[in-house]
Amino acid sequence: MSRVCAGAFSLSLDGFGAGPDQSLENPLGVNGMVLHEWAFKTRTFRTMFGQEGGETGVDDQFAARSFENVGAWILGRNMFGPVRGPWPDEHWKGWWGANPPYHVPVFVLTHYARAPIVMEGGTTFHFITDGIESALRQAQAAAGGKDIRVGGGVSTVQQFLRAGQIDEMHLAVAPVFLGAGENLFAGLDLRALGYVCAERISTANTIHLIAKKQR
Amino acid sequence: MSRVCAGAFSLSLDGFGAGPDQSLENPLGVNGMVLHEWAFKTRTFRTMFGQEGGETGVDDQFAARSFENVGAWILGRNMFGPVRGPWPDEHWKGWWGANPPYHVPVFVLTHYARAPIVMEGGTTFHFITDGIESALRQAQAAAGGKDIRVGGGVSTVQQFLRAGQIDEMHLAVAPVFLGAGENLFAGLDLRALGYVCAERISTANTIHLIAKKQR
Repeated sequence: MSRVCAGAFSLSLDGFGAGPDQSLENPLGVNGMVLHEWAFKTRTFRTMFGQEGGETGVDDQFAARSFENVGAWILGRNMFGPVRGPWPDEHWKGWWGANPPYHVPVFVLTHYARAPIVMEGGTTFHFITDGIESALRQAQAAAGGKDIRVGGGVSTVQQFLRAGQIDEMHLAVAPVFLGAGENLFAGLDLRALGYVCAERISTANTIHLIAKKQR
Repeated sequence: MSRVCAGAFSLSLDGFGAGPDQSLENPLGVNGMVLHEWAFKTRTFRTMFGQEGGETGVDDQFAARSFENVGAWILGRNMFGPVRGPWPDEHWKGWWGANPPYHVPVFVLTHYARAPIVMEGGTTFHFITDGIESALRQAQAAAGGKDIRVGGGVSTVQQFLRAGQIDEMHLAVAPVFLGAGENLFAGLDLRALGYVCAERISTANTIHLIAKKQR
């Protein structure tokens, strides 16, 4: 059965999933890149970005697992780009170049309509202006029975968690304090929402946690 | 040189150091006891509370380390008891019975003056009404060159962190989501305050983190 998952979602020890002040220069917010260092060391992520080598241990297994059986993605507007407000033109097509690392339909939550963008390699960006439930329905229709991956950012993951729509969430906790930015746990009662930590593996670079919703 | 430390301070994965609604029945707040399960399994804590046995591995080493070289403690009013507002009488003498597990002077932060209480086993509770800096000065004077341990709760540890007064903090992160209660990281920018994660060890029951202030 198709599941809804968040995977390889990086956090700091103090719960921040991104630094403050996202911009073209700081796609992950100020100091946010440090959260993802574990991922950039893995073979899975290096291959995805056209680089050689990379680690092949537990971190890589979790990275690879996050991409398995994904039939569609859902992203928040800020994960798609730094542009705020109405789209000034058709110029911005994501952070990832001509061939983004999705290779399936991607549904971008936004308040501003825009025509779909067909990219190389199987990725098409669809812009959804009527909320997360609509995005989920369209993603499920497009996924062909595979899983839906909610990519981020923090606000988008929080919305899906609050709606009880995420079945499984893989958090990767970097051994750093970020101190500021977007905090995944702020105002979120994961216990009341039915989530438990079902799996926990610590590596040299991060702490992997699998949160599952109890049904 | 005498240091100021917080030790064996238990948190949930989502940063809560205590559950909500502390009371006589729930000294650690609703569901808060689960944070401390790792500690209650150790030989150090079991011995402290007059019980036999207990685990002797890494968790126990961290538990024991948190009590080493402590010359004085500082506690918040709520860690001392569930009584709020002015002391109605002299009846409440802490959660720990006639012989509390401190065995050194303990300075309790409160807005309401009260005479010191001499307990069995070397513990004396002193009540400090003029703030954390005063408590720290008096604790240092009493500690005879040994370390000061800031025991908790969350609000007290936050106050000392914000004042830059904690040199080292040992957090023990239980593999649970608590969802509500007192969150150590709420409104606290540990990075800006100079704290880094200097040590991290994961065990079956908890994740030990040592945060140190960069000087």
